[in-house]
Amino acid sequence: MSLQRVLIAGRWRDAESAGTFQSSNPATGEVLPGEYPVSGWGDCDEALSAAAAAADALRRTDPEQIARFLERFAERIETRKAELVECAHLETALPKSPRLADVELPRTTNQLRHAAAAAREGSWALPTVDTKMNIRSTLAPIGPVAVFGPNNFPFAFNGAAGGDFAAAIAAGNPVIAKGHPSHPATSRMLAEEAFSAANETGLPASTVQLVYRIKPESGLRLVSDPRIGATAFTGSRTAGLALKGAADKAGKPIYLEMSSINPVLILPGALAERGAKVAEEFAGSCLLNGGQLCTNPGLVLLLAGEATERFISAAKAAFDSATPPPLLSADVARSLAESVQVLRKSGAQLVTDTQVPAPGARHPNTLLRVSGEQFVADPDTLQTEAFGAASLFVVARDAAEAARAIDSLEGNLTGSIYSESGGGDEALYAQLAPRLRLRVGRLLNDKMPTGVAVSPAMNHGGPYPATGHPGFTAVGIPAALRRFAALHSYDNVRPERLPAALRDKNPNGRMWRLIDGEWTTSDYNRNPS
Amino acid sequence: MSLQRVLIAGRWRDAESAGTFQSSNPATGEVLPGEYPVSGWGDCDEALSAAAAAADALRRTDPEQIARFLERFAERIETRKAELVECAHLETALPKSPRLADVELPRTTNQLRHAAAAAREGSWALPTVDTKMNIRSTLAPIGPVAVFGPNNFPFAFNGAAGGDFAAAIAAGNPVIAKGHPSHPATSRMLAEEAFSAANETGLPASTVQLVYRIKPESGLRLVSDPRIGATAFTGSRTAGLALKGAADKAGKPIYLEMSSINPVLILPGALAERGAKVAEEFAGSCLLNGGQLCTNPGLVLLLAGEATERFISAAKAAFDSATPPPLLSADVARSLAESVQVLRKSGAQLVTDTQVPAPGARHPNTLLRVSGEQFVADPDTLQTEAFGAASLFVVARDAAEAARAIDSLEGNLTGSIYSESGGGDEALYAQLAPRLRLRVGRLLNDKMPTGVAVSPAMNHGGPYPATGHPGFTAVGIPAALRRFAALHSYDNVRPERLPAALRDKNPNGRMWRLIDGEWTTSDYNRNPS
Repeated sequence: MSLQRVLIAGRWRDAESAGTFQSSNPATGEVLPGEYPVSGWGDCDEALSAAAAAADALRRTDPEQIARFLERFAERIETRKAELVECAHLETALPKSPRLADVELPRTTNQLRHAAAAAREGSWALPTVDTKMNIRSTLAPIGPVAVFGPNNFPFAFNGAAGGDFAAAIAAGNPVIAKGHPSHPATSRMLAEEAFSAANETGLPASTVQLVYRIKPESGLRLVSDPRIGATAFTGSRTAGLALKGAADKAGKPIYLEMSSINPVLILPGALAERGAKVAEEFAGSCLLNGGQLCTNPGLVLLLAGEATERFISAAKAAFDSATPPPLLSADVARSLAESVQVLRKSGAQLVTDTQVPAPGARHPNTLLRVSGEQFVADPDTLQTEAFGAASLFVVARDAAEAARAIDSLEGNLTGSIYSESGGGDEALYAQLAPRLRLRVGRLLNDKMPTGVAVSPAMNHGGPYPATGHPGFTAVGIPAALRRFAALHSYDNVRPERLPAALRDKNPNGRMWRLIDGEWTTSDYNRNPS
Repeated sequence: MSLQRVLIAGRWRDAESAGTFQSSNPATGEVLPGEYPVSGWGDCDEALSAAAAAADALRRTDPEQIARFLERFAERIETRKAELVECAHLETALPKSPRLADVELPRTTNQLRHAAAAAREGSWALPTVDTKMNIRSTLAPIGPVAVFGPNNFPFAFNGAAGGDFAAAIAAGNPVIAKGHPSHPATSRMLAEEAFSAANETGLPASTVQLVYRIKPESGLRLVSDPRIGATAFTGSRTAGLALKGAADKAGKPIYLEMSSINPVLILPGALAERGAKVAEEFAGSCLLNGGQLCTNPGLVLLLAGEATERFISAAKAAFDSATPPPLLSADVARSLAESVQVLRKSGAQLVTDTQVPAPGARHPNTLLRVSGEQFVADPDTLQTEAFGAASLFVVARDAAEAARAIDSLEGNLTGSIYSESGGGDEALYAQLAPRLRLRVGRLLNDKMPTGVAVSPAMNHGGPYPATGHPGFTAVGIPAALRRFAALHSYDNVRPERLPAALRDKNPNGRMWRLIDGEWTTSDYNRNPS
């Protein structure tokens, strides 16, 4: 069996290999064909130099051409859809339909097309013109972006095709993709299509590069290398914080989406009004894809009472009757079991009693409960993320205890509040929502957090340690592009030397620019007639 | 002599003192009246708790009220102008006129009024509405902001009145000001006026707090404390990087303006056309305020030739004939002498031969030169910032060597390029400007970098290590406000629970909002007639 090749400096070539690995089918445990290299530092080093050269070329490239690349890449993914879905299914055990074929792959191509539109239109860069002082500014590409993709979205967050990839490219930067080792074949196929699309549309050959796996110390060097512009990482807190430490020390921006338990607060009026329906929504959201979503509702805060007990019973019934799907990998199953143990040792009581069917990497659907008092006494441990179909009910005695529980939450991506539709919970909402607001990036009403729409108003981000900076989002265009940019001001620069976005004439007639304090798509007319 | 009081938790009170200090008049060396406390951690701790409470109150405060505070504060500064100017002059030796009275104080009140306008109008927060998905987002206050002011702008960058202060408050956050120990009386007076203005306009009493000096370990704790939202620091690289290390580790945003030598590239055509004039501009800029400006032109890159030698002679003549003013402190003079020694030891040759007049903290006006070859061989040492009236000429043999010199530059706030007015230098500009562009936050043409206009298109920021993140600016409204904000998304949140900026109706009829992809000041009309 020959070793798969990495994509570096515009060609598929043998890796400078520091080891090899294979992926396996988590549904069956069987090892999948294909042996993949663990790249040594030499691969990263060559990729960085090639990316630096590509970055220079991309700065001189018409955004229209970058847009065409992203669109062509989307088309090529669609052309190869059946094969991609089959491959990702084998590597992740995620269902082919609807998940991979009907949800995630269309989401991926949709993101690429959104990013293309943003690149073409250009407003994402907040071009700003001060005609009186003749100072003009715009966000500009930051340089090569390393994208570390997670295990749970083989397409939509893939380092070589996902949201971070699309945003980095649309902002004008080349990408060095670090595929997740649990789905190397999927990453390879996506990189093949990206590479072909780059060639077809005339982008620099090193616009997209791919390594499958690198040693941890290479990761630390990669994110802090002088040639890197920025890094995007989606994955575990442990790995994310290690990379952050290295990048911070080198003064290199790094955007992390690390962990989140996505608290859901269900107020008494909502339980009285529609407790069964909310339980159904909760179970549907928490069990979706084996619970392996960044926005999985991993903590439900309730006020003690009969309706809460009924809610818990209904959720238990749903969890007990659902068959746990195979998880993304044996590692995920092991890590989930460990987290559940941590929660139980901290006093969380098991609610569910699901059995695990063989074979494959599976874990029982798990619900646990603690009192508000217990939670507030040991909030750090009781916020251990149990990545999978697991959630912790925190049953507070009263609103004051619920408030204390909320105040002891770490930063999260999302927070949801269910309340009575007629306004019966308003006083509680007014007391608790402002506290939850400060702990989360996205606040939802009457809705579970899973489902992260690609909307300009989305925030798939939040306070530390959900991410590394509360001002940025990983999903949502145009904002996601602004992570991969540096602010460039031009002071008294001669008109013909300005970037097109900052000249008096609007470069495409559609770009929104802030001219003398007004957002407009018009040209600036120096001498209006 | 009684110890001066700190402003903490809404009252002027005795510090929990860990020592005392006095400031001195750098022009004469005499110790100034007034003994000031070095605050122990207890002061920081109480300030943090008070700031956290103030932050909660400010979130519920009408931006109009915050705007009135900023404006009232500006008025109060103007009322006390003569006393402030006298005090700052004694503490810094900066000239009363024009510098303090006619430039810096008006700049400070101007910034406060700009910030007030931005707070009142609200567009700075990029309110974004997606009506189809009913997801809405806005930037929101990040929480208490610690502002560490520098030595060189006792008003305009003062922790209790300057640009970072104004931006943090306008974004809705309370400020804990850490005054610079070289001008404690000025800081105290400004905080007195801020405190009075807060009381007059009904803002929380802990909106502004002041400590004069803290121990380094308290600084590290302060910027990483769970109650802090973010930190702004202007000062030395050593202190800035220490604070950054602590803040990064705690996941707390920190914005740093650390050091910059602000390269100026003078192309041959400009020298041939107007060499004497450029030399005069350079000397005027570099000698301004004893060169103690963040944007002081500390490196001039020239191409070898007769015109360059004439330029250097003219600059030398200007430097030799100017009397060095007293510097901001004896520390500044000492540090400048040390930096010049470092440069000389690395092979830089002294061009000037100015003598230093007594008394006071002074240093000769200093010009040094190296070849491009020398510079490229030892760029790290030869980029040592010599904060003061000092500059290094780098004389490159040819354009290729100049390009290598530019490529070896660290991140800087600014980069200037002088070229022939008729376009005779275009080929060189095209070759060198794109390289310089990547090394600086603000690129200037035919203009020295000193003078940082308060413009929406300003970038007073740049790549590391000039700052900690190339996407943000410390000067320029609205962008400077966005440093002190977290992104808040609202998903399916009921209309009456939304912040005013995100409701269908425009809250003030003037706020720019991105509604369904279009910037508009109109209401969103759900059912247009």
